[in-house]
Amino acid sequence: MTATPYLRLDAGILDANIAATAARAERLGVALRPHAKTHKCPQIAERQQAAGAVGLTVATIGEAEVFAAAGFADLFIAYPLWVDAGAADRLRALAAGGASVAVGCDSIEAGRNLVGLPVQVMVELDSGHHRSGVLPADAGVLGGELSGLGLAVRGAFTFPGHSYSPGGREQAALDEADALARAATAMAAAGVPVCVLSGGSTPSLQYADARVDELRPGVYVFGDAQQVELGTIGFEQVALTVGSTVVSHAGGRVICDAGSKALGADRAPWATGYGRVLGEPDARIVALSEHHATIEWPGRLPALGSVILVVPNHVCNAVNLGDEYVLTTGGHWPVAARGRNH
Amino acid sequence: MTATPYLRLDAGILDANIAATAARAERLGVALRPHAKTHKCPQIAERQQAAGAVGLTVATIGEAEVFAAAGFADLFIAYPLWVDAGAADRLRALAAGGASVAVGCDSIEAGRNLVGLPVQVMVELDSGHHRSGVLPADAGVLGGELSGLGLAVRGAFTFPGHSYSPGGREQAALDEADALARAATAMAAAGVPVCVLSGGSTPSLQYADARVDELRPGVYVFGDAQQVELGTIGFEQVALTVGSTVVSHAGGRVICDAGSKALGADRAPWATGYGRVLGEPDARIVALSEHHATIEWPGRLPALGSVILVVPNHVCNAVNLGDEYVLTTGGHWPVAARGRNH
Repeated sequence: MTATPYLRLDAGILDANIAATAARAERLGVALRPHAKTHKCPQIAERQQAAGAVGLTVATIGEAEVFAAAGFADLFIAYPLWVDAGAADRLRALAAGGASVAVGCDSIEAGRNLVGLPVQVMVELDSGHHRSGVLPADAGVLGGELSGLGLAVRGAFTFPGHSYSPGGREQAALDEADALARAATAMAAAGVPVCVLSGGSTPSLQYADARVDELRPGVYVFGDAQQVELGTIGFEQVALTVGSTVVSHAGGRVICDAGSKALGADRAPWATGYGRVLGEPDARIVALSEHHATIEWPGRLPALGSVILVVPNHVCNAVNLGDEYVLTTGGHWPVAARGRNH
Repeated sequence: MTATPYLRLDAGILDANIAATAARAERLGVALRPHAKTHKCPQIAERQQAAGAVGLTVATIGEAEVFAAAGFADLFIAYPLWVDAGAADRLRALAAGGASVAVGCDSIEAGRNLVGLPVQVMVELDSGHHRSGVLPADAGVLGGELSGLGLAVRGAFTFPGHSYSPGGREQAALDEADALARAATAMAAAGVPVCVLSGGSTPSLQYADARVDELRPGVYVFGDAQQVELGTIGFEQVALTVGSTVVSHAGGRVICDAGSKALGADRAPWATGYGRVLGEPDARIVALSEHHATIEWPGRLPALGSVILVVPNHVCNAVNLGDEYVLTTGGHWPVAARGRNH
């Protein structure tokens, strides 16, 4: 019996999710470069590659190192890296090992750190999420400056993170395609040819626009409670749950051992709770401590000692809390890049 | 240069925090059994022991295993464990290795699993947090039943978690002491002598009542943004921060690389943001992604590439995301029980 809480992976659903998104990308004529920060697992990246992914996206140099060591040679660090001397050495080592690496950039100051390094550069755009990135109209100036430093500017990318809101998915996909198209025009006018326009998030995937060259969704492999509540997927597409034991019926509720150290503490303002329960769509996780979830449960409570399957709100953070996946078919896969967040 | 984000520990402040709480407990005449889930680090537990701690509190069997292996022999797993065959083997192994282990229990069903195991039992009470635990008035019945199974009932414990609310700390301390006292009366009437009444949380510490025999605070060693915002401590008592690089000034704000995979995603309804910034009390973390914090910063922004010190909202979850502490005086300590959450 596996000690709870643990990461429970249904590889059949995983494979179906990978195949469905690969087919969607193919129909659109858009390349897939899945974000590996979600799974941090070479075994899953292999399946994405086998389904046609052109390369991987990662968030950190540490993740790039893990996937490069596992044989993945085409990596995009979709992050506006500030490359100091230590980071420069690590990027050189990746290239020396045979990896082709692109990095994000949203300022000339950060670009100066990249001069002389064996990396390609992608200009980051803000397409409406208002995190990092320049406005599309400014992509020409930045692209020109970076190119003027001798950097190999490959294109532009954006993360339409405002797709994570109820009813906001379609507009975010449109904003993304518009921003990328406008940036391409601005960059071309500045004499910077654009090879690739890269976008994508799991919620906006369904509305993706063929003006984009490649998509970088991450969560689609597993699904999570946020995707269910946004309407991106149904529960039957959730491949990853946290197996958790019912430890108490105090107060007439279910207390189980999947707390924030197993699920993560994510809770968007529009979420109905701290996660969901597979097979009990009306159950609500009303409170979360480090080692307890408090669940209001309709009808008869599951017996003390029962194992229930909790769907994390945000699967990327739940996975980063575990060391291995327990496969429903038997066996384990490592969360190889767990904690490689720098 | 340490790659960011990383756990930065000021051992001078740590030692001062440990000494101050030890002195407070001594003045009250209450024993300290600090909760090691906060730090997960034998080097810090040694300092707590040297300052007079009577033993350690842990949340899981996995944490107990790590601290027992490091030589800590008196352990209380302050959790209503559901002990299946695998957990029973692990508890037997702990005892065989010389550890004295107590476990929490809030039902006769869970108690039956403990029969024949080398553990003491603590009845869990709900003192107002409304998570696990029985009501104080029911502690006599449960204590009597557990005792009737032949279990060694040592006392009662509670976590006054409702101390985590603005203005709620003093009342929570009072509720805790009242609940423990009423449970002791009920248990004595049921013929179950009570050796120890155990309570404690960091926010309620200041108001702790001498009717309690031992306290189990965890966060006090490091402090965090929640404690600052609750008024428990000042910024000068924060020993643990996350060192983070400013990577972007997009939108006139500071974007740094400490996201939810470094800080944790905790945000209580009363919190002013997703953490605080040391030395910039008016800065507010208004959004958090996995690898980005978006900070509204008053006045002149710190330069791109600067390292800023972010104070996590909930330090226990931030620590569980890291593998080591980087000491300001040089050197590293391991987060030895990182991920041992089962």
